[in-house]
Amino acid sequence: MTIVPAYEEVLRAAERIRPHVNRTPVLTSRTLNRMTGCSLFFKAENFQKVGAFKARGACNAVFSLTEDEARHGVATHSSGNHAAAVAYAAGLRGIPAIVVMPDDAPPVKRAAVEGYGPRIVTSGSHPLDRERMLEEVVAETGATFIHPSNDPRVIAGQGTAALELVEEVPDLDVVMAPVGGGGLLAGTALAVAGRSPGTRVIAVEPEAVDDAYRSFRDGRIYPPTNAETVADGLRTFLGDVNFPIIREYVAEIVTVSEGGIVEAMRLVWERMKIIIEPSSAVPVAALFEEPLAGRCRGLRVGITLSGGNVDLERLPWMGQTRS
Amino acid sequence: MTIVPAYEEVLRAAERIRPHVNRTPVLTSRTLNRMTGCSLFFKAENFQKVGAFKARGACNAVFSLTEDEARHGVATHSSGNHAAAVAYAAGLRGIPAIVVMPDDAPPVKRAAVEGYGPRIVTSGSHPLDRERMLEEVVAETGATFIHPSNDPRVIAGQGTAALELVEEVPDLDVVMAPVGGGGLLAGTALAVAGRSPGTRVIAVEPEAVDDAYRSFRDGRIYPPTNAETVADGLRTFLGDVNFPIIREYVAEIVTVSEGGIVEAMRLVWERMKIIIEPSSAVPVAALFEEPLAGRCRGLRVGITLSGGNVDLERLPWMGQTRS
Repeated sequence: MTIVPAYEEVLRAAERIRPHVNRTPVLTSRTLNRMTGCSLFFKAENFQKVGAFKARGACNAVFSLTEDEARHGVATHSSGNHAAAVAYAAGLRGIPAIVVMPDDAPPVKRAAVEGYGPRIVTSGSHPLDRERMLEEVVAETGATFIHPSNDPRVIAGQGTAALELVEEVPDLDVVMAPVGGGGLLAGTALAVAGRSPGTRVIAVEPEAVDDAYRSFRDGRIYPPTNAETVADGLRTFLGDVNFPIIREYVAEIVTVSEGGIVEAMRLVWERMKIIIEPSSAVPVAALFEEPLAGRCRGLRVGITLSGGNVDLERLPWMGQTRS
Repeated sequence: MTIVPAYEEVLRAAERIRPHVNRTPVLTSRTLNRMTGCSLFFKAENFQKVGAFKARGACNAVFSLTEDEARHGVATHSSGNHAAAVAYAAGLRGIPAIVVMPDDAPPVKRAAVEGYGPRIVTSGSHPLDRERMLEEVVAETGATFIHPSNDPRVIAGQGTAALELVEEVPDLDVVMAPVGGGGLLAGTALAVAGRSPGTRVIAVEPEAVDDAYRSFRDGRIYPPTNAETVADGLRTFLGDVNFPIIREYVAEIVTVSEGGIVEAMRLVWERMKIIIEPSSAVPVAALFEEPLAGRCRGLRVGITLSGGNVDLERLPWMGQTRS
């Protein structure tokens, strides 16, 4: 089976985006090591441009365009980090960016994207409204659509985070990443398989939106559930480009509870003094819950902290009593 | 005039505490550089042991004790980072620590100190009650009192943060630190004067509790005001050990507004994705307010981010509208 993109695409992406993204640090925490029994290495993509790993994929896609393609700009649908990342990358290249955003997007998210200067087009909140609006925009402008997760250029770009991690920390037993749309996970899997083939890739998903878990188990892509999760960036589903990569190179997908995600997020804030968004806490939570809790004891575990964009007015533990 | 401690004490402190504290990173932020017009270098003591620079002074004090002194333990009064730091250092040396804490200390602060395992003795909330209780404890146990800020060993220890900063980032035009009790500031001043004498040290204080500002201006130590400030760690006053050092080596003390502190704290959280406590935001705020705003444009400015211990249930910007 031919996997597209291949590991070599991750290497090329790393070269291509180097001038435009941060080489983020790898952090450690003796407290979290003690609590989990692991040696943990956190790839801190919360310190990435636009506050999330999404800058990598967006930059790789935007800087992969030919001059002719680029002239017509880029378009995407997203109300979150990917929209900001596409706008950021387009700004660097000096080309137009159009973001289709549902009319019920939270003002704080909309404002974050607006800061990067794209043209924002509002659609109805139903996914089909969004798709239709995007098609119109593309037909009208000739812009190139950059899908948040099911695009080979995006996948290769996201893979550069794990590539840096396994280059910097050799002999990892496990690399963990959250899974939502599958772009980060597929890129991670490609990078690890190519650069550190002895390392197992384990993906973690909120059990409330466990479509990737079930898709992986059953070998077919399930549509997204309509459920809510605190890790709202993971409420998306796998695609036909990233799913074959995930099936080939990912060892396991596990799920975590909502309460576990919130506890893990708070733990990282309190003990590591860094701001991570709920999606980043998803793999951390897995170290404390079945089926993974204890199984990683004594292992060297890399974890991608995917981003740090949080509404600082409303933190998920507020109004709750701690477990 | 002989300054006690001298720069050499900071160097000795650095050797003494090296096994026990983190060499914290120096962070940069292109966003904050753009906003301020400076080249900023943040010494991230929020990543220090116990979450604050206080670990440095406490470790230097505890590991300076003779075996005979150490056997009787150490004592302090504090409901904050210094208490945790003394307990942490005592735990490392395996000696008793006693913390006198007012009966109205917030439960979250008390819990944070308890985590390091000292004996906690409760006193009335008036400073005189606290002093009397501490004297009783010392008389009864023979423990060595470690003052939070007016102790030569503590001052020398705190100075190691700035020492690392100026070693790592040469040619700084300015180093900024918050001032409360004066321990960090005096240590910073000694380290910078000794290692980087061309660098100006500028201290920043909340204007609501501007006793250090007035003391520096008038050449005499004023007692603390009773006012509130969001940077509650700075509600203390200078002492006879640190004041001569501050007068000799600090170029300037400026004050900042409460609103400015909150805005600066939020700015660092949002843009740098790190958790800092309000006291850490005090020097950052000064870059945006008179009399300093604009004056540092084009300069290389080091800033000590003093700590990251925050009650995550109650953030100071909540319930406010943003300016």
